[in-house]
Amino acid sequence: MRCTKKKETILQKDKHENAYNLRRVQLPVDFWAILNEYRPTEESGHVISRFHNSGELPRKDYESLNYDNCYNEPFVEYCDSLRDKQSARKVEFIKWVVTLLVGVFTGLVALFIDYVVKLLTKWKYNSVEGSIYKCMDDGCLVVSFLWLLLFNVGFCIIASSLVIIEPVAAGSGIPEIKCYLNGVKIPNVGRLRTLVSKAIGVLFSVAGGLFVGKEGPMIHSGAIIGAGVPQFQSIAFKRVNINTYSYFRTDRDKRDFVSGGAAAGVAAAFGAPIGGVLFSLEEGCSFWNQKLTWRTFFCSMAATYSLNFFLSGIDGNDWGFFYLPGLINFGVFKCSNDTGIGCRLWNILDLAVFIVMGFIGGVMGALFNHLNKLITKYRMKHVQKKNKVVRILEAVLISACTALFAFGGSMLLGECKAIPTVIINSTNETTQDFVRTYFCEDGYYNDMATLLFNSQEEAIKQLFHQEGKFSIRSLALFVIFFYLLACWTYGSSVPSGLFVPCLLCGAAYGRLVATVLVDVLGYENHSIYSGTFALIGAASFLGGVVRMTISLTVILIESTNEISYGLPLMLVLMVAKWSGDLFNEGLYDIHIHLKGVPLLEWEAPEKTEKLVASDAMNKKVVVFYPATRVSSIVKILKTNAHNAFPVVTVRNKQSQDSEEFGDELELYASLEEETVPKNAHWNLTGMIMRYQLVTLLKKRIWYREEDGRSTQRKLSYEEMTEEYPRYPDIYDINQDPHLIISDNMVVDLTPYINPCPYTVYPNTPVPQVFNLFRSMGLRHLPVVSHDGQLMGMITRHNLTHEYLEHILQEHASS
Amino acid sequence: MRCTKKKETILQKDKHENAYNLRRVQLPVDFWAILNEYRPTEESGHVISRFHNSGELPRKDYESLNYDNCYNEPFVEYCDSLRDKQSARKVEFIKWVVTLLVGVFTGLVALFIDYVVKLLTKWKYNSVEGSIYKCMDDGCLVVSFLWLLLFNVGFCIIASSLVIIEPVAAGSGIPEIKCYLNGVKIPNVGRLRTLVSKAIGVLFSVAGGLFVGKEGPMIHSGAIIGAGVPQFQSIAFKRVNINTYSYFRTDRDKRDFVSGGAAAGVAAAFGAPIGGVLFSLEEGCSFWNQKLTWRTFFCSMAATYSLNFFLSGIDGNDWGFFYLPGLINFGVFKCSNDTGIGCRLWNILDLAVFIVMGFIGGVMGALFNHLNKLITKYRMKHVQKKNKVVRILEAVLISACTALFAFGGSMLLGECKAIPTVIINSTNETTQDFVRTYFCEDGYYNDMATLLFNSQEEAIKQLFHQEGKFSIRSLALFVIFFYLLACWTYGSSVPSGLFVPCLLCGAAYGRLVATVLVDVLGYENHSIYSGTFALIGAASFLGGVVRMTISLTVILIESTNEISYGLPLMLVLMVAKWSGDLFNEGLYDIHIHLKGVPLLEWEAPEKTEKLVASDAMNKKVVVFYPATRVSSIVKILKTNAHNAFPVVTVRNKQSQDSEEFGDELELYASLEEETVPKNAHWNLTGMIMRYQLVTLLKKRIWYREEDGRSTQRKLSYEEMTEEYPRYPDIYDINQDPHLIISDNMVVDLTPYINPCPYTVYPNTPVPQVFNLFRSMGLRHLPVVSHDGQLMGMITRHNLTHEYLEHILQEHASS
Repeated sequence: MRCTKKKETILQKDKHENAYNLRRVQLPVDFWAILNEYRPTEESGHVISRFHNSGELPRKDYESLNYDNCYNEPFVEYCDSLRDKQSARKVEFIKWVVTLLVGVFTGLVALFIDYVVKLLTKWKYNSVEGSIYKCMDDGCLVVSFLWLLLFNVGFCIIASSLVIIEPVAAGSGIPEIKCYLNGVKIPNVGRLRTLVSKAIGVLFSVAGGLFVGKEGPMIHSGAIIGAGVPQFQSIAFKRVNINTYSYFRTDRDKRDFVSGGAAAGVAAAFGAPIGGVLFSLEEGCSFWNQKLTWRTFFCSMAATYSLNFFLSGIDGNDWGFFYLPGLINFGVFKCSNDTGIGCRLWNILDLAVFIVMGFIGGVMGALFNHLNKLITKYRMKHVQKKNKVVRILEAVLISACTALFAFGGSMLLGECKAIPTVIINSTNETTQDFVRTYFCEDGYYNDMATLLFNSQEEAIKQLFHQEGKFSIRSLALFVIFFYLLACWTYGSSVPSGLFVPCLLCGAAYGRLVATVLVDVLGYENHSIYSGTFALIGAASFLGGVVRMTISLTVILIESTNEISYGLPLMLVLMVAKWSGDLFNEGLYDIHIHLKGVPLLEWEAPEKTEKLVASDAMNKKVVVFYPATRVSSIVKILKTNAHNAFPVVTVRNKQSQDSEEFGDELELYASLEEETVPKNAHWNLTGMIMRYQLVTLLKKRIWYREEDGRSTQRKLSYEEMTEEYPRYPDIYDINQDPHLIISDNMVVDLTPYINPCPYTVYPNTPVPQVFNLFRSMGLRHLPVVSHDGQLMGMITRHNLTHEYLEHILQEHASS
Repeated sequence: MRCTKKKETILQKDKHENAYNLRRVQLPVDFWAILNEYRPTEESGHVISRFHNSGELPRKDYESLNYDNCYNEPFVEYCDSLRDKQSARKVEFIKWVVTLLVGVFTGLVALFIDYVVKLLTKWKYNSVEGSIYKCMDDGCLVVSFLWLLLFNVGFCIIASSLVIIEPVAAGSGIPEIKCYLNGVKIPNVGRLRTLVSKAIGVLFSVAGGLFVGKEGPMIHSGAIIGAGVPQFQSIAFKRVNINTYSYFRTDRDKRDFVSGGAAAGVAAAFGAPIGGVLFSLEEGCSFWNQKLTWRTFFCSMAATYSLNFFLSGIDGNDWGFFYLPGLINFGVFKCSNDTGIGCRLWNILDLAVFIVMGFIGGVMGALFNHLNKLITKYRMKHVQKKNKVVRILEAVLISACTALFAFGGSMLLGECKAIPTVIINSTNETTQDFVRTYFCEDGYYNDMATLLFNSQEEAIKQLFHQEGKFSIRSLALFVIFFYLLACWTYGSSVPSGLFVPCLLCGAAYGRLVATVLVDVLGYENHSIYSGTFALIGAASFLGGVVRMTISLTVILIESTNEISYGLPLMLVLMVAKWSGDLFNEGLYDIHIHLKGVPLLEWEAPEKTEKLVASDAMNKKVVVFYPATRVSSIVKILKTNAHNAFPVVTVRNKQSQDSEEFGDELELYASLEEETVPKNAHWNLTGMIMRYQLVTLLKKRIWYREEDGRSTQRKLSYEEMTEEYPRYPDIYDINQDPHLIISDNMVVDLTPYINPCPYTVYPNTPVPQVFNLFRSMGLRHLPVVSHDGQLMGMITRHNLTHEYLEHILQEHASS
C-alpha cells in the first residue's frame, strides 16, 4: 500500500503540471490496458496497470525531464538567429548574471534562516534558563519544563502547519532534489510556495528543539531559487522587451540552474563551495560539462561569500571582510596541550581505530535507516491517510518527547564535571556562554545539559573542542535517546534536515569511543586527541545514514578547514558506506523508493548483459503519420497519456518507396493494431512531444486538405515555447468555442518533429541502452530494427532497477 | 611545415602500436586517395591526403582509444561467467588494490624526485656559495660563476640526453596526458622507458637551475604508473595463474587507471587530492561516473598520504604522523602585524585590484603563449630537424643564459635591504637559511639573490611571506628576465613543468603590484598584506598561461590551505582566463595543436547546427560481409589502414529479405565502388575492429566452405584479448609459413562483431553527433539512414573543430 492521500494530491496537481488528468475522461477498461503508461489511483475507479499488483515497481505518474535538445526546424532557425545577431555572447552573459543572482539569493535565504533561528533559540533558552535558575531555588522546575514545552510545541505547530499547506516542504528536500537532478519532475518541488513553506517551516522546526537540521532544507531552497530566478528573468525581461525572454525555456537549462542552486545551498550551509559542486555532480549530472561545472562553482562561491560577507558584517561587525564562511563551523582543530612534538591531531595507529569506528558507524546508520523505513511505512499507512490534524499531532508528540528528554535528561541523567581552567580563564566570552551549569555546584558544569541546552551546532562544537570531560554514561545515554528521537522525527510532517542530527549523534559516539579508550582501556599513546575521534564518529554515522561518497568527504574536509583530516575522513566514509551497504541503501534512496519515484541509478543492474532492448521496451506504442487530421490528434490526445509519439511512414514491403504524405491522414495507429496492413512496416521518421502537439493545435497550425501543405503557417521557436514550463493540455484548449474541427483540417507535423532522435537496435544489450539513456538525459528512446522499422519505445520506467530485475526474473523463469 | 623528424619517429613506432606501417606496402596512388584515413610522410613517397595542403587540419596518424564496450558474443559470455563465479566482487577488489598501488607508487616517485632534487640543489648551492664567500674577498668571482655554470650545464646535459633517448619525455607531459584522456593514443606516452627518462630527466633539469617545474612531469609519471600497474598485475597474475589476468584488457579500463594516476600526480605534486580528481575530470572524462570518481579520489588520497608519510618521517623525523602534505607548500598565510582587527588577509576593496591584476595576468599569459608558440614553431623547423647534438646544444645555451642571469642579476642588479628583526630573532633556523646576503653588508640581504639563489619553491615562499622588502627595480627586472627565459625554456629538449615557473614569475609580479601600491601610490587602507597580492599575481599569470578553470582554483585553494582565498582566487582565474582567451588559447592546447593531435573539445563549434552528420561523415567506407573469405580479409587488411569496418548485408530493393550469409563471400566492397548492384542497398549489421580480424586470422578461426559454418571454432574473450595492448598487425602473422590460404577458407564474423553500435541518422545535426561521440567516448560512429542503410562513418577526425570549421567554410562558399 502506498500513500494514497498523497497520490491523490499529486494527481490533482498533475493537471497544472501538464499531465493527463484522469478524472475528466471515462475510458474503456481495455484501452487503458493497452496504453500502459499511466497508473490511475484506485479511487478513480479506472483500470489498474498490469504492474500495479506487484507493488514493487515505481509509479508511472511521475513525469520525466528531457535533457536532450530537440533539433526541429524552429529550434535550428532559432539557433541560427542567435548566431546572426551575435547574441550568443549575450546569452552567455545573462546566464552568468542569473547564476550570480541564484548564488546571492541562496546565500541571503541561508542568512535569513540562520539569523532568525538564532534569534528564536536565544529567546527560548533565555526564557527557560531564567526560569530554571529561579526555580532551582524555589523548587518550581515543573514550571520551567512547561515553559520549554510551550516553546517547543508552539514552534513545532507552526512548522507542521506550513507543511500541511505545502506537503512537499516536509523532510529534508534532498530526495526531491536528487530526483529532479536525476530527471524526474516531482510536482510542486520547485514552486515559490514550497520555498516559503520550507524556509519558514525549518526556522520553527529547528528553533522548536526538534532533532532536525536546517541544511537539507537550505539545499532545497537553493534549488528552488535556481529553478525560479531564470523564470523570473524571463518574465521581467519580457516586459522590458529586450528580446531575451526566449532563453531558458527548456528543461535542460532549468535543470542546469537547479543544479547550480543546489550546489549553492550546500555551499551556504557548510561553507563548502567545492563540496557543493561535487554534491550536484554526484546527485545529478550524468554528463560532465566543463562550462556548466565552472558556472556551478561560481554559483557556490557567490552563495558562500555573500553569506560570509553579511555574517562577518552582522556578527563580527566587520563589514567588507570575509572570515565567517558557512553556517556550520566546526571550529579550529588544534592540539592545545603543548607537550612538544607528541601532540598531533592523529597518527597512523589511530587509523586502525578509525576504520573500526567507521564499520560500527555504518552499521548504526544501516539500523537507523531500517528503523526509519519501518516508521515511515507505518506513517504512510496510518498517519498520513488520516486528516491533517493527526499529522500535526504526531509532530507535537515528537516535540513533547524531545522536550522531555532535553529537560529530564539534563536534570536526571547529567553528571557534574569540573570546568577546565582554560574555559574559566578564557577571555572569549562565547566559550563560557555555552557551558551549562544547571543542577551543579559552582565550578562544575552539567555535561548532559551542555549538549541538550545548546543549538545542535554548538553541541557538536562542544564535543569537538571542549577540553573538559563528558562522562561515559552521559554520552551513552545521549547517543541512545538522540538516535531514537532523530529516527522518529525524520519523515514526519516538518521540514527536517538530516545532516546536523547525524553529525551530533555521531560526534557523541566518537567522543564516547575516545573516552572509553583513554579512561577504560588506558590506550594513551601520544595522548589521544578526543576532538578527532568525535569528528570521525560524526563522519562515520552520517556516512552510514546517507551513503554519499566524494561530496560528503569534501564537504567535511571543507567544513573542518583542516586538510590533514582528508585521509581519515575518506577512509571512514568509505568503510561506513561499505558496511552500511551490506544491509540496506541510503536513507534518501529509501525515501525515494517508498515514494515510488522511477530513479535511474548510475549503472544498469548486474546480469542485465543478458537482456536486450527488445526485452525491456514497451511494445505498445501509439504513432502518428507526418500529416494527420486535427480530429485524430485531438482524439488521441484525449484518450491517451503518452508524452511523446513516434512519427512514422508506412513502407510497403512490396514496393521500396515510402508512400506520399497526405495519403494516410486517417488516424494514428498502435503497433499492435490490425489497421496496419500485414505487408507494410513502419519506418521511424521522428518524434513529437505531447506539448508540441497541443501547442500546434492551440496556435491553429493546420491547413485545409484542399489547399495543400504549403498553406500551413510556420511557428517560431519563441511561439512554440511561450508557455514553458506550464504548457496547456488538450482540455485547456478544447473549451475554446472557436475551435470547430472539421474533417478536412490537417496538420503537417514535419517541421516540428525531432527528426533525429537517438535510437537503439532491438538487440542492443540493456547496459548499453542504459548508458545512452542516462548519459544523454533522454526521456524517450525509440527501438528501431536494423532495417529502420520501429519496434518499441524505452522510457525511464523501462530502465529502473526494479523493472529490469522484474524482467530478469521473468526471463529466468521462462 | 610540421616537425617531420618527429613524425618519422612516430611512424616507425607505429608498427608496435599496431598501426599500419606504410613502408611495407607499395600502394597505387588512387587507392590512398580513396582510403583517406592515413597521411603518409612526404619522405615515404606516397600520396598525400587531400587535407594535407591546407596545413590546418589535425594529422590522421594518431590512433583513438575506445571507451565503449563491444558487446559481442565472447564479451557477453565473459560477463556472464564473471557473474556465475561470483567473481564480480573479486574484480572490484582487485581494481581497488591496483588503484591503491598506483597511488602509492606515484607518491613514492614524487618523493624520489623531490628528495634527489633537494640533494643535488644543496650540493650545487653549497659549492657555489662557498666559492662566492671566498671570492668576495679574493676577487675571484669569475671562478664562482664558472662553478655555477659547470653545475648547471652539466645537469642540463644529462637531462637533455635523456630526452634525446626518449623524445616523448620532453616538456611537461600534461598535453600528452590531456590527449590520452581525451581519447588519443600518443605513441610511447605510457611506457616504462618514458617514465624513467622523465623522472630522472626532471631531477637534473630542475637541479640544473633551469626555470622549469617538476609538477608537470610528476603528473605524467603518475599517469604512466596508472597505465603500467594494471598491465603488470596482468603479467604477474598470469604467472601465478589465479585466473584474473583477463581483466583490465580494454582501453576503457586503462584510461580509467591513467586518469587515476594523473590525479595522483597532481595530488602528490600540490598536496591537492581534490584538485587532482577535478584535474582528471576537467581534462579527460566525459561521462561522470560516480564509482570511477570515487576510485580516482582514493588514488589521489593514497598518493598524497604516502608522500606525506615519508616526508614527515624523513624531513620531520616524525614517523607515523602526517603533517607535510604535498611538495609545493605555500606556507601559512597569516597576518602577523598585530594591529588589531584591521589586519585581514584581504578585504572587499582589494577585490577590485585583484580583478585588474587578473586581467593583466591574463594578458601577460597570452603574450607568453604567443612568444612560446613562435619559438616552438621556429624550434620545430630549425632545431628539431637538425641532429641530436643541436638539440642538446640549445638546452645548454638556455642553461648558460639562466646561470648568467642568476649570477649577474644577483651581483649587479640586486639591492641590499635590512634584514627584518623578525628573521634575525627567528629561532627557526630555516627561515634565516633562505635569505641571501651576498654582496651586502652585515645585517642586510640581497633581494635579487634571495630570489635567484634558492629553489623556485623557496623563492615563491619568500615572495608570499617574507616580511622584508623587495625593491621595485629588483622585482621588475626579475619578472622581465624570468619571463623571457621561462618562455624560451618551455618546449626545449628537457623535461620541463610549467606550474612553478609561472607561479614564481606571477608572484613577483603580484609582489611588485603590492609594493607599488604601498610605496608609490600610498594605497594603505587596512595595511595591504603583500603575501595575498603575491598569491593573486601568481594565480593570475598561471591562469593566463594554462587557462584551466575549476581544477586550478581548487589546486591553489588546497595548496594555500586557506579556504578564505577561495573567492579572490576564483575571480582572478576567471578574469585571467577570459582576458587570455581574447587573444589565444592555453599553452597546452597550443602545443597539442602544433603537434596536430585530433583533440575533441567540449562542445561542437558554433554555427554547426546547420551541418548534419552526412556533411561531416566520411563517405568512403570499406565494409565486410558477415562471412568473408580469408584471402579477402588478408587483402583488405594489407591494403588498407582503417581500424574498424562496418559489417553489412545486401538487401535487394526488389525483395525485402536480406540474402543469406554464404552467398556473398567474394570480397569486401567500398560504398562508392560499382560492385554493388544498383538495385541493392547495404544494411548495417555491426562493426568489427581491425585487431579483432587479425586475431581471428592468427588464431585460425575459419571454416572450409564445404564444411559449413558450424565447424568454425569459437574464440573466448580471454583468447581474443590475450595480446592487449599490443595486438599483432597483419604483417606479423603473414610471415607464418604455415599460413597457407586457400580460396575456400571462410570466416564467419558474426560472433565477433559488435552487433549494436551507436548510430546516427544522416540528418542528425552535428552538435548532437558530437555530443554522442564525446560523451560515449566512441571511436567509430556509423551513419545510417532512416531505413537502415549504411551511409558513411564518423570518426574523431570528422569532429575536430578544425575539420568542422573547414566543412562549414565549404558549406558557406557553395
